[in-house]
Amino acid sequence: MKKLFETDLEALRHTASHILAQSVKRLYPDTKLGIGPAIEDGFYYDFLRKEPFAPGDIEKITAEMKNIIKENLRVEKLECDREKAAEILKDEPLKLEILSEIPDARVSFYKQGEFIDLCAGPHVSSTGQVKHFKLLNISSAYWRGNENRETLQRIYGVCFPTAEELEEYLKNLEEAKKRDHRVLGPAIGLFSLQPEYGAGLVYWHPRGGTTRKIIEDFWRDSHLERGYHLVYTPHIADVSLWEKSGHLSFYKENMFPPINIENNVSYQLKPMNCPFHILIYQSSLHSYREFPIRWAELGTVYRYEKDGVLHGTLRVRGFTQDDAHIFCRPDQIESEVVDVLDFVMYFLSSFGFSEYEIYLSTRPDKFVGSVENWERATKALENALMKKNLQYQVDPGEGVFYGPKIDLKIRDCLRRTWQCSTIQVDFNIPERFGLKYVNQANKFERPIMIHRAIMGSLERFFGVLIEHYSGNFPVWLAPVQLKILPIADRIIPYAEEILAFSRKNKIRAEMDVSQESLNKKIRIAENEKVPVIAVVGEKEQSSRTVAVRVHKKGMVGVYPVEELVKKIRALDNTRKIEIDI
Amino acid sequence: MKKLFETDLEALRHTASHILAQSVKRLYPDTKLGIGPAIEDGFYYDFLRKEPFAPGDIEKITAEMKNIIKENLRVEKLECDREKAAEILKDEPLKLEILSEIPDARVSFYKQGEFIDLCAGPHVSSTGQVKHFKLLNISSAYWRGNENRETLQRIYGVCFPTAEELEEYLKNLEEAKKRDHRVLGPAIGLFSLQPEYGAGLVYWHPRGGTTRKIIEDFWRDSHLERGYHLVYTPHIADVSLWEKSGHLSFYKENMFPPINIENNVSYQLKPMNCPFHILIYQSSLHSYREFPIRWAELGTVYRYEKDGVLHGTLRVRGFTQDDAHIFCRPDQIESEVVDVLDFVMYFLSSFGFSEYEIYLSTRPDKFVGSVENWERATKALENALMKKNLQYQVDPGEGVFYGPKIDLKIRDCLRRTWQCSTIQVDFNIPERFGLKYVNQANKFERPIMIHRAIMGSLERFFGVLIEHYSGNFPVWLAPVQLKILPIADRIIPYAEEILAFSRKNKIRAEMDVSQESLNKKIRIAENEKVPVIAVVGEKEQSSRTVAVRVHKKGMVGVYPVEELVKKIRALDNTRKIEIDI
Repeated sequence: MKKLFETDLEALRHTASHILAQSVKRLYPDTKLGIGPAIEDGFYYDFLRKEPFAPGDIEKITAEMKNIIKENLRVEKLECDREKAAEILKDEPLKLEILSEIPDARVSFYKQGEFIDLCAGPHVSSTGQVKHFKLLNISSAYWRGNENRETLQRIYGVCFPTAEELEEYLKNLEEAKKRDHRVLGPAIGLFSLQPEYGAGLVYWHPRGGTTRKIIEDFWRDSHLERGYHLVYTPHIADVSLWEKSGHLSFYKENMFPPINIENNVSYQLKPMNCPFHILIYQSSLHSYREFPIRWAELGTVYRYEKDGVLHGTLRVRGFTQDDAHIFCRPDQIESEVVDVLDFVMYFLSSFGFSEYEIYLSTRPDKFVGSVENWERATKALENALMKKNLQYQVDPGEGVFYGPKIDLKIRDCLRRTWQCSTIQVDFNIPERFGLKYVNQANKFERPIMIHRAIMGSLERFFGVLIEHYSGNFPVWLAPVQLKILPIADRIIPYAEEILAFSRKNKIRAEMDVSQESLNKKIRIAENEKVPVIAVVGEKEQSSRTVAVRVHKKGMVGVYPVEELVKKIRALDNTRKIEIDI
Repeated sequence: MKKLFETDLEALRHTASHILAQSVKRLYPDTKLGIGPAIEDGFYYDFLRKEPFAPGDIEKITAEMKNIIKENLRVEKLECDREKAAEILKDEPLKLEILSEIPDARVSFYKQGEFIDLCAGPHVSSTGQVKHFKLLNISSAYWRGNENRETLQRIYGVCFPTAEELEEYLKNLEEAKKRDHRVLGPAIGLFSLQPEYGAGLVYWHPRGGTTRKIIEDFWRDSHLERGYHLVYTPHIADVSLWEKSGHLSFYKENMFPPINIENNVSYQLKPMNCPFHILIYQSSLHSYREFPIRWAELGTVYRYEKDGVLHGTLRVRGFTQDDAHIFCRPDQIESEVVDVLDFVMYFLSSFGFSEYEIYLSTRPDKFVGSVENWERATKALENALMKKNLQYQVDPGEGVFYGPKIDLKIRDCLRRTWQCSTIQVDFNIPERFGLKYVNQANKFERPIMIHRAIMGSLERFFGVLIEHYSGNFPVWLAPVQLKILPIADRIIPYAEEILAFSRKNKIRAEMDVSQESLNKKIRIAENEKVPVIAVVGEKEQSSRTVAVRVHKKGMVGVYPVEELVKKIRALDNTRKIEIDI
């Protein structure tokens, strides 16, 4: 167990946020302070000001921050009583509001030079230690996140201990812009959004559909191999199901409103698949001997998200969960979770994701079920993580009200993390629906239910994949694996032979018979992100070979056709990430 | 081209309906006559009567019909003017209503004995020719199908030229009751309906889900082999899409009402996939060189059907269409339709359906598009049917308003027909959405769009499959292909070896390790409709063999394990219908 943010790093970034505030106060003394925490990779500070910051202000503020760093001011912690604190903050109305909510008799401040801030720390000991930072952007934020309160201006920055880390971060940021799946996806024909006809809905185009089929096939087949069964359930249900499941009391604001049919009948789109799997469970009697029961579904759910938060395929209104529910005895939780963790790692690493951040969330203040069951289940999750020898962080009290859970984030090649897999024990639904099974003593007992997803959402996972690979998918995921480029019309018959032979060998191959120059054809294929390109001219025709270009490597050699086909098949069959041709 | 109902057969059944009416008038003289046509397999007659027919009345009416047949009355055609006709029909208000709508100056009657009916024929020449009939049931029907008009009582009967045909029909009818998918499907764990939580929605249970996956895999893979691409689209769209597509003007009553979101935004469930494919088409420029474009989707659509017409998985509110749209040049219609017909036949015969009824529906009175385009497209459909050497029936004027179409019904083992495949040319949508492509002359042109489905609806097709096979699916479709029955606990280790070996060879195998007797285990496996059963005892263990039972055949022999596995794999790979082990 290791905290992901080292305290030193947090202190460094927290001090950077104070330097930012100090700089702003020096330049714009009328500005009032909001809050300024350290966050992942950096920091921000919220400011209350009548006029918006101008485009050039970032540079001015940065320059003054550098001065403050050069001044190498000592950062001191001061403590005082509430009366003194109110006196210090008399010109900072937002800070006074925070002060009024602190219950303690004495409060702490941090001071550097003329700047002082109500703050619990931690900080580094002097401003000179903050060397490698950059302000990124200004956005707006409501005071306390409440849309009825003041609108503040939030300045974001990043800060790292070394110049190399800052540089890498900024490079990755630039790279991330180039890889933006919202631009890249439509450009290479993977998907589109059609906001004019409904925001937040993803249209998978032929190329994206090809990759989706590959992902789905892999998902389904690996589930069957691991003893899951597939179920298929509707996208709507009568509102009475959502009443019974409790979704209308604790999840209503995320659901699309009901569809009102005549005769007081209303259907409502499903935001989750669970209640449907429950109905299947309940339609027959179950025995302990069947356990564990593992049911999986690629279930498309619909959740209402505000326009403002929608983002490409990453945050949408309709998405396909790779959902599964496991019904088991309490003593089977641990071994089931071990299996799921193993499955998660096998599955995600097949897509090239092998770095994870894992969180175990424990019992919150409001919860259902007995403390004893919570502790037993939490222990089972912990044991499973230990058995799989996985590092994880405990998020105390961050479990859902219905049970403890494990969340797993993947790290992409730009070191960004993405929430994907989740494993959640549920004490609520089995109780609400009165689920039961016949135990060894021939008595009815309540089963344990585990929700789990590996990708989380197919649409989201696809967006992450596009950015991770910058569209250059490994061979096994590429919509088109091989493109054949005849150098002239007279070579077309030979190119067609290769095309037919490749397709016969289940390779997704295409051919470019346009009148373009070879260089242009190569450029087109590379823009289409085809991993393997086979150029054929007279020489290749007479020797029954192909000249092979591979993404990022350029020309790699001339191979007999059979050999190239064999190599591609091998990359495909083994789901190899690197294209080592 | 051959009419499917022979005129003689129609005449025979029409006369049977008159004999029915004559019998009812003799027994219940106050009864007023509605209409009484010949239909597929038989006939019906609608009667207006205050009191409902009693349970025993069917027998009385049948007995009197037999008398009329024995009397062998001559059936005569009479013609008269409208005045005379009104005089004849003076006590038949419903008939008078029909008369008032006939524009002709002279009308025809058919008369047998004391019974006379306003009727255009045809009929056989005497009642004695109707020998093999049976009245089946009484239901209610609105006069002219209008729920604001009188409720009539409709008596249904069947009638055949020979006793053997009638007997076979009645046997099939009995058999059909036993095979009812609504009973069989849930009983063997294939699916359930959960009307309490929304009528007309299908829940695919693990076993049904297994078969669905097999069907879907076969469907998707065979589409890719035939040059289709897969797309995936949402289940909802903003109402503006349904306005633009025209569905809100010509299809509204079949659609679920809109989901009203704040800010005047409304989403609506899709009743069809077409507009979504159109949006994908429109998101890039297309050239004649890409044509034909073939996009396929297993798209789940939702249509509002009245409670009363819902029927198991055959008529539902949510179903998955195996939809595809082909965009092509006008001169490509014929070859595309040839390909689709070939595909349809390949696909359906893989499921054991090799008898079809094919209908070509031509231009209706109300239509969009030019007469010239209609004629060219209709001719293309006709040529395609001819090229595939298929018998078909022309339904003049029965095309949809947007284009001509081919419909194909399959015949199941009980000789019932089921509408499955459809191929429809569409002149409307390309126009409404302003679709275009760049032709060889580098000018914009309107593409042709063809809608097509093979199964029609996955849910419906599955229901038909269950009834066709009475749940005894061929090996390639069976959720469990092999069940291993050890005769005693001491044989379990050997049985487990076989189980593991079978599964390693991708056979869907299970094992029964319960304490039941061997006979009971066999009965259970047969009730579960497992096609192949392997019994293992000491003898089999020592010789590394299995004793094999096959559905309908019983014991077929003792085989080395490897041989049985090979046989099952072969049946699976070739999608063989017969289990010839």
